[in-house]
Amino acid sequence: MKIGQQQFRTIWESPSTHHGQRQVNIIDQTALPHALRIISLDSVNAMAHAIKTMQVRGAPLIGAAAAYGMALACQESAADQHLQVASASLLASRPTAVNLRWAVERMLRLLCQLPEAQRCEAAWREANAMADEDVQINQAIGQHGLTLLQQLAAERPDRLNILTHCNAGWLATVDWGTALAPVYAAFDAGLDVHVWVGETRPRNQGASLTAWELQQHGVPYTVICDNAGGHLMQQGRVDCVIVGADRVSRRGDVCNKIGTYLKALAAYDNQVPFYAAVPTPTIDWRIADGLREIPIEERAAEEVTLMSGITSAGKIEIIRLVPEGSMAVNPAFDVTPARLVTGIITEHGCFAPAALEDVLNLTNAKELVDETFI
Amino acid sequence: MKIGQQQFRTIWESPSTHHGQRQVNIIDQTALPHALRIISLDSVNAMAHAIKTMQVRGAPLIGAAAAYGMALACQESAADQHLQVASASLLASRPTAVNLRWAVERMLRLLCQLPEAQRCEAAWREANAMADEDVQINQAIGQHGLTLLQQLAAERPDRLNILTHCNAGWLATVDWGTALAPVYAAFDAGLDVHVWVGETRPRNQGASLTAWELQQHGVPYTVICDNAGGHLMQQGRVDCVIVGADRVSRRGDVCNKIGTYLKALAAYDNQVPFYAAVPTPTIDWRIADGLREIPIEERAAEEVTLMSGITSAGKIEIIRLVPEGSMAVNPAFDVTPARLVTGIITEHGCFAPAALEDVLNLTNAKELVDETFI
Repeated sequence: MKIGQQQFRTIWESPSTHHGQRQVNIIDQTALPHALRIISLDSVNAMAHAIKTMQVRGAPLIGAAAAYGMALACQESAADQHLQVASASLLASRPTAVNLRWAVERMLRLLCQLPEAQRCEAAWREANAMADEDVQINQAIGQHGLTLLQQLAAERPDRLNILTHCNAGWLATVDWGTALAPVYAAFDAGLDVHVWVGETRPRNQGASLTAWELQQHGVPYTVICDNAGGHLMQQGRVDCVIVGADRVSRRGDVCNKIGTYLKALAAYDNQVPFYAAVPTPTIDWRIADGLREIPIEERAAEEVTLMSGITSAGKIEIIRLVPEGSMAVNPAFDVTPARLVTGIITEHGCFAPAALEDVLNLTNAKELVDETFI
Repeated sequence: MKIGQQQFRTIWESPSTHHGQRQVNIIDQTALPHALRIISLDSVNAMAHAIKTMQVRGAPLIGAAAAYGMALACQESAADQHLQVASASLLASRPTAVNLRWAVERMLRLLCQLPEAQRCEAAWREANAMADEDVQINQAIGQHGLTLLQQLAAERPDRLNILTHCNAGWLATVDWGTALAPVYAAFDAGLDVHVWVGETRPRNQGASLTAWELQQHGVPYTVICDNAGGHLMQQGRVDCVIVGADRVSRRGDVCNKIGTYLKALAAYDNQVPFYAAVPTPTIDWRIADGLREIPIEERAAEEVTLMSGITSAGKIEIIRLVPEGSMAVNPAFDVTPARLVTGIITEHGCFAPAALEDVLNLTNAKELVDETFI
């Protein structure tokens, strides 16, 4: 998507080499929204560090970053032992990320079949292909979502107001995003859209990342506190909710950033359609009851009690909000039961939760499903 | 309640005068939780400013502050015209607060009947009496709430987990609080209680004020993001929700801090009892449908986009969270429909929304009701 007038991905092979070595460029997301910093990475260790420190984040992007990490590793040495060390280092960088394991294993499976001399070239080709695949999947999600948004727009005279939570935009993927792919598709198609951006406490991915990427692409948006979403729906100021997901159960329970459940309750209470937009690998076919079966990561209390931002003097500063010595708990995700979900928008189309298993009947999807069973 | 070992109210007539003028002391709540600052106010303009800037906030406290404001006005000039100007200035300081209107009108009614020479003395006497009444009302709310909490505690072996939103503690009143009065009563009675404190974006009254006052009194609490309340209820970690209210309609719709509606939806979805604790003057008998009839104050966007806290170096700093130029909207309240409300805890007892008009049959309440019909 666009930053200013220039087209970007979140991660790409650098057009230039460094001492003859190929490099990977990333947008450093820890500097956003206050600075645009592009970093060149030339080693698997540098990539593992970038994943660990959340310079790259978002499940699909982490997958692509891991694939490029393996290509960087091959460039250092394509020997089996080095690739094992490299994959262990990448896997340790975000222990819970499913896409990371999926990407590393896909690369390892390919590379181990090849003679050492062919591995490096194949690794770069595969990493670039995986990045392209992510873009295509998200573009397809965008087109299926666009159809839904066009239907909604046809029913109302004014601009279409879409509420989203957290960041499931292009910054969380290689390009297009998941939840925001339909928004970009609609905007580019000339629909009059406006996005309510929930700030998404505690890490403020909405206020920082979603606001920034919409602003750069020129999509009208307004930041709101997470608390305001229900009120806006009561007032008829939200036409639909679209979120991403970290995992979806086969019956359509949606595990996503903490607070998603509250938005879904409000959407249901006000007859506002509520969609989760996900690539099919995010559907975990082994799990039926998301509430009972998906473990919820509890993160550091400091994410709640401290906050980072920029001062009027342009300095990045961390402040404490609570009285000294306050305890806090910080569940990172919640599960929205399928009964509150209007549809799951995938690259194969939009499915009501009860029809989600129809995805299994689609030929293309079967491969993806097999992979999630590995 | 206690700050450290010392007993405080949020507002009180200063024991000392300034150039012969009587003064009102307040705890400056904008400095909490990082500093305890007590301010002396000597004019109605200073009081209106304190209300407007939320140095004093919380419906019952705003009522008491307005009464003291009228006493300060009388001290400047007890002439009808000055009292009219003063009351208009106080009424304009916070548009949603029904207690403010109630207090100003009560003072005006009393004062206009008296010869000018007697007004000043009568105004101070009445303001002090109104502050005392507030304390008594909240104590009674605490006792009725205690009965409910004792019943809930009897049904479970472990500690009782109460979730609250915003600050309806003693800092929001003259003393005891409304939502927290039952908590303090339970804690003082030896019940094993723990409070989930929603941080309450955008102004963080939970993270700053509620956390601070519970900590000072020694009540166990944990701060959570507003987003986490629903998840905790799904996990069975919340036994009841108690909030305050800025206004309650006669059919039991609860207008309270933005985000309350989302908590009420989650409580209803998880069979967690949801109470609003309010003094009866907060019930606006003229209004039936809170959703249609209560205007919602929209506050400055900067409350969303900027945040204030303390740095590790001990400096109060304001930081920006969003990209430069981001729009934000900031509705300050929402309305929770009566169908989601288990009960309204008043100084006369706890009433299901459908039985709320029974309050009208109580002799004591009739006076209050008559006043609100003016």
